Amino acid sequence: MAHVNRDKKKLLTRVRRVAGQVAALEHALEADADCADVLIQIAAAKGAIHGLMMEVLSGHLAEHVVAEASPTKRAREAQAIVELLKGYAK
Amino acid sequence: MAHVNRDKKKLLTRVRRVAGQVAALEHALEADADCADVLIQIAAAKGAIHGLMMEVLSGHLAEHVVAEASPTKRAREAQAIVELLKGYAK
Amino acid sequence: MAHVNRDKKKLLTRVRRVAGQVAALEHALEADADCADVLIQIAAAKGAIHGLMMEVLSGHLAEHVVAEASPTKRAREAQAIVELLKGYAK
Amino acid sequence: MAHVNRDKKKLLTRVRRVAGQVAALEHALEADADCADVLIQIAAAKGAIHGLMMEVLSGHLAEHVVAEASPTKRAREAQAIVELLKGYAK
Repeated sequence: MAHVNRDKKKLLTRVRRVAGQVAALEHALEADADCADVLIQIAAAKGAIHGLMMEVLSGHLAEHVVAEASPTKRAREAQAIVELLKGYAK
Repeated sequence: MAHVNRDKKKLLTRVRRVAGQVAALEHALEADADCADVLIQIAAAKGAIHGLMMEVLSGHLAEHVVAEASPTKRAREAQAIVELLKGYAK
Repeated sequence: MAHVNRDKKKLLTRVRRVAGQVAALEHALEADADCADVLIQIAAAKGAIHGLMMEVLSGHLAEHVVAEASPTKRAREAQAIVELLKGYAK
Repeated sequence: MAHVNRDKKKLLTRVRRVAGQVAALEHALEADADCADVLIQIAAAKGAIHGLMMEVLSGHLAEHVVAEASPTKRAREAQAIVELLKGYAK
């Protein structure tokens, strides 16, 4: 997974931002924060997770499909991505 | 778009099913159907459109990325797919 | 479903727009249109269906939950909406 | 936000589960885990956040719309939920 290596810093920054949002959610729930605000925070965390997914997917496509020399391996990886998206992108 | 040719019959069946669902929605709204049913019909139509998207995406990946000999063209098509998914799969 | 009556014109306009988008998709597939364009058309149709869902949901909430005098009925309708959203909004 | 109080334990369990999934994602990225697995982990985290959203939304609807005596307040809260869903449920 060389692309994760290359993009590691960027991906770790994103996943830590998501971790921060989820920690803030936990504090908000513990502190009985206004639930309209909690709903907005949850939607923002979902958006941040989507951003992380797109970043990893982009790298995965680039390395395991685009840069892959074997058409058979390319086909297998591409189909695995479609299977993932069937549930993820509903 | 040879893959659409090859899968044409399957894709046209899917898009016509969606058209049928949307036509049924129109009749339901005209006939003041129970809106809980209308909500369920709309959700089903969205699911059917998602099925069509996955079918076309799978063919598009197979033909324009997996089977494409030029790595540069593969990279360009893969990135266009990620851009589409950023908005589509939120 | 009085709210559908009141909003009927607006809702029928929306559902007919979706029907037009799906018909255009069918033509595009029949005419072997460029599949990058087809992917974008499908995403747009999904967005239009989402717009219709939000319109009907807004009216349904207003009439069957907000304007409903019986707390028991309000609770039942609200829970039915959450059940719908669990699958729809994934 | 009494409903968060009442459901606090359940909600905190859910948000901590999400925190655990995000922490596991961070470790996977640090350890250069197989990115097909990382993609699946991200999709699972998104699903868990959706579960949390539905739980808080259900409580919010119950307390601030269903149990709210003032129709004006009910209407305002219901509309705020629709606005949230327009972006969240796309």
